[in-house]
Amino acid sequence: MTGIHNLLVGTDVVDEKSVKTLSRYSRVYKLADLAEDRLDELLPSIDSLLVFSWPRQLTSDRLRRMTSLRFIQSILAGVNHIPFASLNSNVIVSSNAGAYSDEVAEYAWALLLSAAKRVVELHVSLREQKWTLKRTLDEGSEITILRERILGILGFGGIGSMVGRIAREFGMQVYAYSRNKAATNCVKFYTGTSGLNELLKKPDAVVLSLPLTSQTARIMNAERLSTMKKDAILVNVARGELVDEKAMYDHLVASPNFRYATDVWWYRESRESLKTDYPFLSLPNFIGTPHVSGPSGLATGRPVQLAVENMIRFLKGLRPRNVVNPEEYRTSYPY
Amino acid sequence: MTGIHNLLVGTDVVDEKSVKTLSRYSRVYKLADLAEDRLDELLPSIDSLLVFSWPRQLTSDRLRRMTSLRFIQSILAGVNHIPFASLNSNVIVSSNAGAYSDEVAEYAWALLLSAAKRVVELHVSLREQKWTLKRTLDEGSEITILRERILGILGFGGIGSMVGRIAREFGMQVYAYSRNKAATNCVKFYTGTSGLNELLKKPDAVVLSLPLTSQTARIMNAERLSTMKKDAILVNVARGELVDEKAMYDHLVASPNFRYATDVWWYRESRESLKTDYPFLSLPNFIGTPHVSGPSGLATGRPVQLAVENMIRFLKGLRPRNVVNPEEYRTSYPY
Repeated sequence: MTGIHNLLVGTDVVDEKSVKTLSRYSRVYKLADLAEDRLDELLPSIDSLLVFSWPRQLTSDRLRRMTSLRFIQSILAGVNHIPFASLNSNVIVSSNAGAYSDEVAEYAWALLLSAAKRVVELHVSLREQKWTLKRTLDEGSEITILRERILGILGFGGIGSMVGRIAREFGMQVYAYSRNKAATNCVKFYTGTSGLNELLKKPDAVVLSLPLTSQTARIMNAERLSTMKKDAILVNVARGELVDEKAMYDHLVASPNFRYATDVWWYRESRESLKTDYPFLSLPNFIGTPHVSGPSGLATGRPVQLAVENMIRFLKGLRPRNVVNPEEYRTSYPY
Repeated sequence: MTGIHNLLVGTDVVDEKSVKTLSRYSRVYKLADLAEDRLDELLPSIDSLLVFSWPRQLTSDRLRRMTSLRFIQSILAGVNHIPFASLNSNVIVSSNAGAYSDEVAEYAWALLLSAAKRVVELHVSLREQKWTLKRTLDEGSEITILRERILGILGFGGIGSMVGRIAREFGMQVYAYSRNKAATNCVKFYTGTSGLNELLKKPDAVVLSLPLTSQTARIMNAERLSTMKKDAILVNVARGELVDEKAMYDHLVASPNFRYATDVWWYRESRESLKTDYPFLSLPNFIGTPHVSGPSGLATGRPVQLAVENMIRFLKGLRPRNVVNPEEYRTSYPY
């Protein structure tokens, strides 16, 4: 034990049992229970913070007054929502990397296969009575067969490596873009900007499972999209802002056999929003779902459990896991 | 060589190269090239027949006049479209089992994951602006997580076993209903009617990959549907008639968390039809696509190649593969 900790729980997704467990190692304050003036009174004593999405009450002004703050644990997998620019350099931030891997990898496969087999497009065309039964497929209505094709995976962490394991059972070759070449059989690794540009030329489908950092924001820009195969499938289960919105729309219009299937959306005023600048949902080669992959994982209780375990490591004076490099997030990029 | 054969090719899905290959072993007649009277003239001499869907010109009257007929090879995987009741007992019929396994197994996974993750339903609700971004899921909008769940597979041939291999990579347990217990690790086998009834109680998802025979027609009836989990997913990539149409509709209405995702449709006048007696496509827990899984396999050229190879076995006097038991198909069931 390293003295008494004061922990602020900034979200109501933490269950009562977990709050009780945390109480063994710290004084626990729940943000939702605190009146504004009581919160202001407590701010200077809070040394640890457990958050899901960033709490609106914790303005940059209030963050400045949290002079004892040493540790922030995210329950979301990524940490791009943490206001690094307003944090002192002695604040450690941990992501919840890996906590959603199984559920999000399953979701990536749902989007990839929905796009490859045109399930959404075909279902809608049946509903609109725009299809008759055919024994052979018309030109242009091809179904993508995955066997012996190439899958590119950008970001080979928990989600990416799980997506890759399943790909091999579908008989696909896996090309991965990653900072570190993991020791994984049957995966061809590419690193660096030139490696990424080289990788993107080859796959029939690409899954985005990268964290959103200053390095990866809008990594899929017009130029990179144009190097991909004209009938490739791009799947995004990470963050909408990995993709340039205008470039994506223009590409989908110009290349009707290219498909973009996403569970994640672009940001408006620093928060993810279903509002888009372009009418993606009117395009037949776009599939969109409202960011349910993470919540489906959250419903298992595992992400909260893992975040609480890591918070307890900090409270016990152990080194927390999944500590991120703030340099990658301290950026002029508006989130 | 066993003398000169007269082969009738009853479909235009056979490419010219294959026709040329077949010509080395037989006189080849293409149905589409024959005038009605020329066809009638040839009928008594035809000993082998290569078909895709059953040719409308080959009425039961004409079949009766094909007195030399000894062998029918189907290019479709199943043979339920062959008019067994009008065939002499010395006619051998071969299915094209296994020819579409990879593509149809991929399609089964596309439907299973689309239903599990509610991709179609969510996409449509976004298009209709009936969804706002949520950090947690509402009651009743649950996403099914496959990991550690049970997948039932009815029919464990080429398609079923491929579906099962992929299931294990998703971390699912596999229960299979099959006539023969294959020597497959990590699969629990069930046989017979009581085995099937026992199996159906447990899975979170069930894939139908059975041939349509007198034994399997409407195997998924009201009673069996009612023994399944209330929030289970049923996927059909085999034949629509494996499922009782009225029972399925009633079950989907009564159990809104049960989901039926199908690529195959019920029969009208002995042929598959997109027409249904009930408005399935207006139900949110129904996903339908217009039988494209087989055609997507056909486009690879492999089903025709395998059917032609088996036809050549017959023409050479060898025992053809995939010979079916006509007793299973000679039925009062109207197809």
